[in-house]
Amino acid sequence: VNSKPRPSEDEIIANFFAPLAGPAGLGLLDDAALLAVPADHELVVTTDVLSCGVHFFAEDAPEVIGRKALRVNLSDLAAKGAEPIGFLLGLALSGDWTADWLTAFAQGLAEDISIFACPLIGGDTVKSLGPLSLSITAIGTVPKGKMIPRAGVREGDLLYVSGTIGDAALGLRLRRALAADRAWIEALSQPAMNYLLMRYLLPLPRLGLRDALRGFAHAAMDVSDGLVGDLGKMLSLTGMTMEMSLADVPLSKAARQALAFDASLVDPILTGGDDYEVLCAVAPGDQDGFEQEAAGLGLSMTLLGSATKGTQLPLVRDAEGRPLVFSAASYRHF
Amino acid sequence: VNSKPRPSEDEIIANFFAPLAGPAGLGLLDDAALLAVPADHELVVTTDVLSCGVHFFAEDAPEVIGRKALRVNLSDLAAKGAEPIGFLLGLALSGDWTADWLTAFAQGLAEDISIFACPLIGGDTVKSLGPLSLSITAIGTVPKGKMIPRAGVREGDLLYVSGTIGDAALGLRLRRALAADRAWIEALSQPAMNYLLMRYLLPLPRLGLRDALRGFAHAAMDVSDGLVGDLGKMLSLTGMTMEMSLADVPLSKAARQALAFDASLVDPILTGGDDYEVLCAVAPGDQDGFEQEAAGLGLSMTLLGSATKGTQLPLVRDAEGRPLVFSAASYRHF
Repeated sequence: VNSKPRPSEDEIIANFFAPLAGPAGLGLLDDAALLAVPADHELVVTTDVLSCGVHFFAEDAPEVIGRKALRVNLSDLAAKGAEPIGFLLGLALSGDWTADWLTAFAQGLAEDISIFACPLIGGDTVKSLGPLSLSITAIGTVPKGKMIPRAGVREGDLLYVSGTIGDAALGLRLRRALAADRAWIEALSQPAMNYLLMRYLLPLPRLGLRDALRGFAHAAMDVSDGLVGDLGKMLSLTGMTMEMSLADVPLSKAARQALAFDASLVDPILTGGDDYEVLCAVAPGDQDGFEQEAAGLGLSMTLLGSATKGTQLPLVRDAEGRPLVFSAASYRHF
Repeated sequence: VNSKPRPSEDEIIANFFAPLAGPAGLGLLDDAALLAVPADHELVVTTDVLSCGVHFFAEDAPEVIGRKALRVNLSDLAAKGAEPIGFLLGLALSGDWTADWLTAFAQGLAEDISIFACPLIGGDTVKSLGPLSLSITAIGTVPKGKMIPRAGVREGDLLYVSGTIGDAALGLRLRRALAADRAWIEALSQPAMNYLLMRYLLPLPRLGLRDALRGFAHAAMDVSDGLVGDLGKMLSLTGMTMEMSLADVPLSKAARQALAFDASLVDPILTGGDDYEVLCAVAPGDQDGFEQEAAGLGLSMTLLGSATKGTQLPLVRDAEGRPLVFSAASYRHF
């Protein structure tokens, strides 16, 4: 039951999206956005598509759906050392959308626009014959030559990861609550459950790392498809590999609780995806400088190990020194 | 029946899309694209979403689906006087996609990338639980202060439109072949049918107008939702309206054939959408200069009338001077 009549396309733009637009969006009244780029800067541009039933659930709160879509893009900018300047939103609405849904969706986006100082600058709203889908293109800037590439890990570099790993993958398991997961889910405390769910629903793009990355990182990427697979992707670009201990992977209290109850959860934790943390490589001589800078930003960066030459996937050893075997190194999209 | 096994996501990127990438795309191996913007230039950015069953048909040749999505974005850049520098592609593949489909899709895109000198610079390929959808974000540049705005028509300005109007709307009717349209469709010659269908499938972004627009236009937009409605949108932004004669609207030979058989087709022709022509406003004193520049580019620009103060929708008069009445001024997206 819809409490309000559905707005027309022009009303959607005028009432829901124009209030979210920055000056570059030209009031969403033109064919395109017009962006000034600061002198001696380059643009960093990324796009992600989120499709209902694949990347989020139809029942998810509309407030968080738009925010997640924006944040996964901001996470890419964060990993590149870029400063966001705006985003475009492509929204394909399924047949059953309501004015209330759109109101909440726009309110959620508005909150993140203000948190991350990244205004809407353009978009397109269309009808979908299938489920809702969102595509966001986020644009950022870096001083010329300062983008942190993914291909740049050198032999001996120290590999760091931000925050904690595996929370979102466990949050997704919680969300699905399949029979196989009931035991560890029931063993979790309520705060731990809430924490893991929030980590799945609302990634935390590590934009605060910008100066530390620009100052010290040879290479960086955002961890979105599982730590082991993404680490392998970054290392392999320059012919590197590494070994690490499970004990060195940063885990939240909630993830530790779950893992203590069910040791098989190491698989989703290390390969499950949706972490949106930053992985980066720093020269050994810069260890102190980088760690101090990151600590000063209030961001926890954990040292995983150091890069060595090699073509094999990164190896993770358990407490007894045995290599872990995973069902798949990365989350598979197809 | 699929003739080839389906590639993995990494294989899709490496085999189908990386060959389409320009240098800014970093081989599609990084988290984001890195774009240099020429000094003293600004960026013009636009995004469009095309959803199967709404903006194209599942049976459309895969070669043209990607090209149409790219071209509708390039049409926005053309109307702003911008020069394309690259685009990002968000592709949500439905469950039944095949390697053959993707091969043809990428081949079509490759052709347009070379025609329009606009390389792929990034993207995201995901699974959709519903129909195929595409979102493209196209990026262009203009010299600082030279973007042609939509809000800029002054009293007395001459309004021009490029190419011909209504072809794509008739092409869509042909494509659908509803019973009500059978009579005029059967009256068309085969070349006329082919022409209208092609105009629906493959818009012609008027990027060649760039210098003429930058040199002379006060305002411009691309006609995508019907001439009358879009003209009204542009004029109303500065409190303008206008009158024009149906006889002054540029029609193709094929559209004239159809209209001669069925006079009611004036409605889809003037309000049906998908034209992707450029509408622009030029000061009366610049008439000769603008027309000469456009003619030198080999592009036909037709004078529709001149802007007057007013708040009503633009008026179109028939051969007897009677105002035409339309079922709706614009194509409705919802």
